[in-house]
Amino acid sequence: MTIKDNQTAMREKKIWLYDTTLRDGAQREGISLSLTDKIKIVHKLDEMGIPFIEGGWPGANPKDVQFFWQLKETPLKQAQIVAFCSTRRPHQSCDNDPMLKAILAANTHWVTIFGKSWDLHVTEGLKTSLEENLAMIEETVAFLVSQGRKVIYDAEHWFDGYQANPDYAIATLKSAIKGGAKWLVFCDTNGGTLPHEISRIVSEVVSKLNLNLEEEEGVKLGIHTHNDSGTAVANAIASVLEGVTMVQGTINGYGERCGNANLCTLIPNLQLKLGYQCLEKEDLTQLAPNSRYISEIVNLAPDDHAPFVGKSAFAHKGGIHVSAVAKNPLTYEHIEPELVGNERKIVISDQAGLSNVIAKAKSLGITLDKNDPTCREILQKLKNLEHQGYQFEGAEASFELLILSALKQRKKLFSIKGFQVHCDILASEKNNCSNALATIKVLVDEKELLEVAEGNGPVSALDHALRKALVQFYPEIGQFHLTDYKVRILDSTAGTDAKTRVLVESSNGESRWTTVGVSTNIIDASYQAVVEGIEYGILLTKAEISPISVGN
Amino acid sequence: MTIKDNQTAMREKKIWLYDTTLRDGAQREGISLSLTDKIKIVHKLDEMGIPFIEGGWPGANPKDVQFFWQLKETPLKQAQIVAFCSTRRPHQSCDNDPMLKAILAANTHWVTIFGKSWDLHVTEGLKTSLEENLAMIEETVAFLVSQGRKVIYDAEHWFDGYQANPDYAIATLKSAIKGGAKWLVFCDTNGGTLPHEISRIVSEVVSKLNLNLEEEEGVKLGIHTHNDSGTAVANAIASVLEGVTMVQGTINGYGERCGNANLCTLIPNLQLKLGYQCLEKEDLTQLAPNSRYISEIVNLAPDDHAPFVGKSAFAHKGGIHVSAVAKNPLTYEHIEPELVGNERKIVISDQAGLSNVIAKAKSLGITLDKNDPTCREILQKLKNLEHQGYQFEGAEASFELLILSALKQRKKLFSIKGFQVHCDILASEKNNCSNALATIKVLVDEKELLEVAEGNGPVSALDHALRKALVQFYPEIGQFHLTDYKVRILDSTAGTDAKTRVLVESSNGESRWTTVGVSTNIIDASYQAVVEGIEYGILLTKAEISPISVGN
Repeated sequence: MTIKDNQTAMREKKIWLYDTTLRDGAQREGISLSLTDKIKIVHKLDEMGIPFIEGGWPGANPKDVQFFWQLKETPLKQAQIVAFCSTRRPHQSCDNDPMLKAILAANTHWVTIFGKSWDLHVTEGLKTSLEENLAMIEETVAFLVSQGRKVIYDAEHWFDGYQANPDYAIATLKSAIKGGAKWLVFCDTNGGTLPHEISRIVSEVVSKLNLNLEEEEGVKLGIHTHNDSGTAVANAIASVLEGVTMVQGTINGYGERCGNANLCTLIPNLQLKLGYQCLEKEDLTQLAPNSRYISEIVNLAPDDHAPFVGKSAFAHKGGIHVSAVAKNPLTYEHIEPELVGNERKIVISDQAGLSNVIAKAKSLGITLDKNDPTCREILQKLKNLEHQGYQFEGAEASFELLILSALKQRKKLFSIKGFQVHCDILASEKNNCSNALATIKVLVDEKELLEVAEGNGPVSALDHALRKALVQFYPEIGQFHLTDYKVRILDSTAGTDAKTRVLVESSNGESRWTTVGVSTNIIDASYQAVVEGIEYGILLTKAEISPISVGN
Repeated sequence: MTIKDNQTAMREKKIWLYDTTLRDGAQREGISLSLTDKIKIVHKLDEMGIPFIEGGWPGANPKDVQFFWQLKETPLKQAQIVAFCSTRRPHQSCDNDPMLKAILAANTHWVTIFGKSWDLHVTEGLKTSLEENLAMIEETVAFLVSQGRKVIYDAEHWFDGYQANPDYAIATLKSAIKGGAKWLVFCDTNGGTLPHEISRIVSEVVSKLNLNLEEEEGVKLGIHTHNDSGTAVANAIASVLEGVTMVQGTINGYGERCGNANLCTLIPNLQLKLGYQCLEKEDLTQLAPNSRYISEIVNLAPDDHAPFVGKSAFAHKGGIHVSAVAKNPLTYEHIEPELVGNERKIVISDQAGLSNVIAKAKSLGITLDKNDPTCREILQKLKNLEHQGYQFEGAEASFELLILSALKQRKKLFSIKGFQVHCDILASEKNNCSNALATIKVLVDEKELLEVAEGNGPVSALDHALRKALVQFYPEIGQFHLTDYKVRILDSTAGTDAKTRVLVESSNGESRWTTVGVSTNIIDASYQAVVEGIEYGILLTKAEISPISVGN
């Protein structure tokens, strides 16, 4: 069968996406996820419609044990959560293996077990015999199946192993099949394989294992690629064209070294260009915002030049391009940006911008009319603020306040005349002793209040002083607390002179909301976000506005 | 011929690299090159051994006219500089075309002319007839040949055009051949084509044009890809496997939207994995430093996760990986990093064992013995600090200072007795007016110095005050500047009481180094990182320590 015939045959076929952002993605230098971060991400992936989500390696990492426990309290809607683990130790029984105990305790339907495919890694890495490795694979899979688990088998270093010793590599897969694995996943662990070799090897393996991939209950194939050769996406596509139906990757291609296959690139390629079914059409239209949401959670600046989902992926510069695109977008765009929830980035036609504002307001329960001049005013204000570095994707409470201002419906609860923050640090060999103090002057009901408070740092001191001043007028503030605080340096190459964007998430115990501030002075940026957070909370408690759930 | 046979036949064959960083690469948002920048880059590309360098479009851009003039004063050593232009205007003669006059005035041996391959672009974009477009291509090429130029013909929108109307697309190439073009370059202008389609189309075209690619004097083929599908590199490789011998791309993949094919990824793939001859072996070993040099010139932060040349491309985190790599690097590395001028990076993290510490110290030029108690002391200190929230993955300068301390080799250059930071913010309806002031007391050579400075924010003020105090003792500080500043809130759910980790990257114009600070008080955390950054820079300038290449 040629690639082309195969491609036609595969059209309309389902691809099972398998996300490993929480495990392999988190290996990227600079990513350090808290338990709360992991919970937020897993729910977003579930909402996106990803069928398999790898949650972590419960035996190797205490945080991952907690994660699987925590997840029982807020179960997923549709996705299967998968626990990850290696095969048992050499010459030990499965019953006593502490790693396997931990993976069973995670109590998931699906587990992924990785084993060695490359003879070199068995003899030099595991320091055991080739036969023992086959037994480790078969027995581990069989043990987990006997405990009621469905097993995905990750064949580590598959392509290197197959090139070094094809017979042995094939034997490892046969062991996994004998053990009862449902899926065999080809892992290009070192990321060194090129697409044409992937095609050749996958096709040889299908024929050597004599697999009937069409059979409903038969063993199925998956692919897991890394980007060390810059071809992780192409490698995954090459495998799919040879009959692979599970595609593993991470959101935004996070992962160690050069990253994993980027699902945000793979999904639109497979679905829009090759006709495979990965996500529901409506879920696909949320790809770009979801990619950005997850980059906010992991606190890495989104890549503006990322295919499909980057802010500049559909940017048009030249005048010819712009007018041609206006006439017929396909002249200079490979797909319609809306299909993946992205947008063309020229001077956005007023119409498109307006409908964005209207749609966003509607999602907040505010009805706007596109002929209302307020609508245009909001759009203008939004553009100005975004130009200054504000971003409302993660700060919908601030956006709602902005709309209320434009509608002249934002009640003046208090106004701040000014504040001062003072930090005094005594440095010593052993420890710095730091002390932060804030004074603030607030006007409420025409009364001027002057308050002072201390804190762990300048922002904390400021927050305390503000609450101290306002709580006598708005006792509900006593219930508020800050649940998240994120700082992003914009244009970080400007060093300490760069602009800072601060996101503050607040809660009253029932709802949570996020506000934003921007300034070259981090204290000023934090202050803006903290003040809007308190204002929004008061309005919410007074039922002046409807609760929105941000970050859920 | 199957791909595999073809691949074998092509081995040892020369690939002609064609760099378009100065033209297509400069289209990337955020890049704005001065004439001096362009001159620096072109000489670096020449030194790298790139045979064809596209300098710009002299007819469309006055800066490019100047560039070609300027270049005559400092001619290139080996590369051909190429001027770029479109075909003549519809229904005009070549003699009178101002664009063609400008390209002749650039006075290069080689010129690249782009023309329309896609019928839709001829009728809708150029608003002319399909026949006239063929005449434009043939006459423009023939005119330039008659003026003594060698012509490369870029077939714009080749793959879309061929899919829409293959016969017409083939006719455009025949016109270019009739005109006398030496090279035909397939451009995937919108970046929407996937590798298997590239393979199919290139192979069909070779057969339809009945080309003998082995013939010395015959027409040759080139490829120019964009990364909108995330497959620009794979697409170029697919074409080469079908007989294409010119590969166009940019350094670091710069280019509009999602960028062009990244030459820093393509070159090692073609040369080290597929056996093609792109660069001299010694020139290949300069690829990583050259990639970083050019990112400095264009003033974009290097992508640490870029294949082959990123500083994390060969980073190893886990203890198992580290000991395996020490024994046999190929177990976890697809190529030897030294071949492309990169280096292995042992990531220091809380998974670190003694072997990590020793390996890391060794890469910094410090030999530690694992039986030396200092070694265990460093590991213990590292674990304590990581428990407090420090992270040395991205802060190797701080790690080196830590090792020097443990070895009692860290000279006391200055000590800080304390400092105060003061922010005064006057809030108003329209704008906050913010003001930051820092005072610092430093002890150098038993002299106590008291200094004060202002800044855009508290950290900037503190940095200014510290430099002001120290520069009289260490004038090299005058060359230092902060090149990056990152803030990460640890356990962000603790709100503004959370711990803050700050990473500061400094530069002296030659090397860059990163330091870290942690505190609940962001000012204190920033202070620690800024102070260590200055200390490390002074030691580096005094050659007390070896320059480590962090981000170089």
